[in-house]
Amino acid sequence: MELSDARVTIVGLGLMGGSMALRLQSRCQELVGVDNDPKTVGLARRARIKIQDLGAALTHTDVLVLATPVKESLRLLEVFKVNPPSVSLLIDIGSTKRKIVQAMDLLPVQVAAVGGHPLCGKERGGFAEAETRLFEGSRFVLIPSSRTTPSSLALADQIVGALGATALRMEAARHDQLLADASHLPYLLAATLMAAVEPVGREHPELWDVVATGFLSTSRLAASDLTMMVDILTTNEDMVQNALSGAQAELRQLRKLIADGNAGSLREYLEPLQRRRVSLQDQGRTTDGV
Amino acid sequence: MELSDARVTIVGLGLMGGSMALRLQSRCQELVGVDNDPKTVGLARRARIKIQDLGAALTHTDVLVLATPVKESLRLLEVFKVNPPSVSLLIDIGSTKRKIVQAMDLLPVQVAAVGGHPLCGKERGGFAEAETRLFEGSRFVLIPSSRTTPSSLALADQIVGALGATALRMEAARHDQLLADASHLPYLLAATLMAAVEPVGREHPELWDVVATGFLSTSRLAASDLTMMVDILTTNEDMVQNALSGAQAELRQLRKLIADGNAGSLREYLEPLQRRRVSLQDQGRTTDGV
Repeated sequence: MELSDARVTIVGLGLMGGSMALRLQSRCQELVGVDNDPKTVGLARRARIKIQDLGAALTHTDVLVLATPVKESLRLLEVFKVNPPSVSLLIDIGSTKRKIVQAMDLLPVQVAAVGGHPLCGKERGGFAEAETRLFEGSRFVLIPSSRTTPSSLALADQIVGALGATALRMEAARHDQLLADASHLPYLLAATLMAAVEPVGREHPELWDVVATGFLSTSRLAASDLTMMVDILTTNEDMVQNALSGAQAELRQLRKLIADGNAGSLREYLEPLQRRRVSLQDQGRTTDGV
Repeated sequence: MELSDARVTIVGLGLMGGSMALRLQSRCQELVGVDNDPKTVGLARRARIKIQDLGAALTHTDVLVLATPVKESLRLLEVFKVNPPSVSLLIDIGSTKRKIVQAMDLLPVQVAAVGGHPLCGKERGGFAEAETRLFEGSRFVLIPSSRTTPSSLALADQIVGALGATALRMEAARHDQLLADASHLPYLLAATLMAAVEPVGREHPELWDVVATGFLSTSRLAASDLTMMVDILTTNEDMVQNALSGAQAELRQLRKLIADGNAGSLREYLEPLQRRRVSLQDQGRTTDGV
């Protein structure tokens, strides 16, 4: 099946689902959005997105995208176990993948389900922040479940291409491990920074006058949507704890080096980290905007 | 004395000193740059900055700016104890202030010295990164020493104004305490993130394919200049250890909340941090570019 001939339903029109809807609208046969929030529905309708409730949308859709927080997607997958949708592709875009793909594995055999995770975002959520180019140039992880068929995977690839992203195949466990370090740990360190300075700021409000761009950059992810983040942390607990444990070990090491007061050893510890971070910039990624 | 009538010497033409030189060049009687690095001198000369060695520059200068790393500024202040420069204002721009201001307090009584710290920067240093507008809209902390006179402070205020920044008076101890939280801790958490993921990336190079803008934002400061950072950490050790200790406590708390698996309590912990971080954005600061 070609995406251009497909009817696509997107459940959840937040930042990610909304951006997908805006982008895919002109690239498929028909696009339908599903969302419970009246304000979101109003904004989506103004952007000419057709809105239906889930039941109506499922009566005839070819591609079903779950763009809901992970726990809501898990709940919907439970429902689909009993009432399987008749679709050519069921795909989610949740930020943790083991529990989702395990739930997909338990779907009736005819539900062609693929796990997905687009590696982009903004710290502010909601349809109001949605944009057609959000996915451009970013990677989109695709994780086959035991329900994935070659044709459903091909359709998922078409969607990734239509979004302007590059598909990256990965096992669910490897995804959750790597994302714990690449994404969940940064969020938690940003939150840690905010939590550590909060009592200082209460006692000395001048603190907020001396925070500059470095503080804002390091703490940026602490502004992330909490429903999304709490779902992520509680569905990837073991990997997140591993990542945190690694960070704690490095913090202890840093404290020791600073206490020792040996500038040479401190520099020796920091140098490879600086080199690596500079090399990430040289790959042409920027931190601007997002 | 008016800045427009003053001869200004800037020692150290890195990002900060270079940006000051480019900005003040047209706003003072004569501007002289001092730097030991031949490449920096070449770049500065191409930007029409007059270069002299320190001895020659000191024979007649009204304003002497130390834009060197903190430990080099401390070394120069030691020299000035014995060979005091004859200036209307001696000001430094180092990122930690107690040791600098203590050294200023020991200068001969005629050296009108003020501690300074412009709260801006970029993670990449060097004259090549210098720009006239670097200081615009940012705050510039001024810390009186026991050598500060009303006229030297007025001259420092003029410089801050000429840079497009806003002066902020503060005690050295309060500065070092607040900056440990607002600046040194963010740097150390960024370095911690890089250190924690490095072994994962060695084992699974795909890690570097899944880092997105959130990771880059949180880790950005780890690319900072190491001479500057090591000087900061080793001249503000006690306050930095306090800040790190606070971060460690919050990390332990976060690990416990995640292990408990109670989404409600986790959200309750994260919510005020999110609110605070969003409010910082609403103050109109951005993380773009810097």
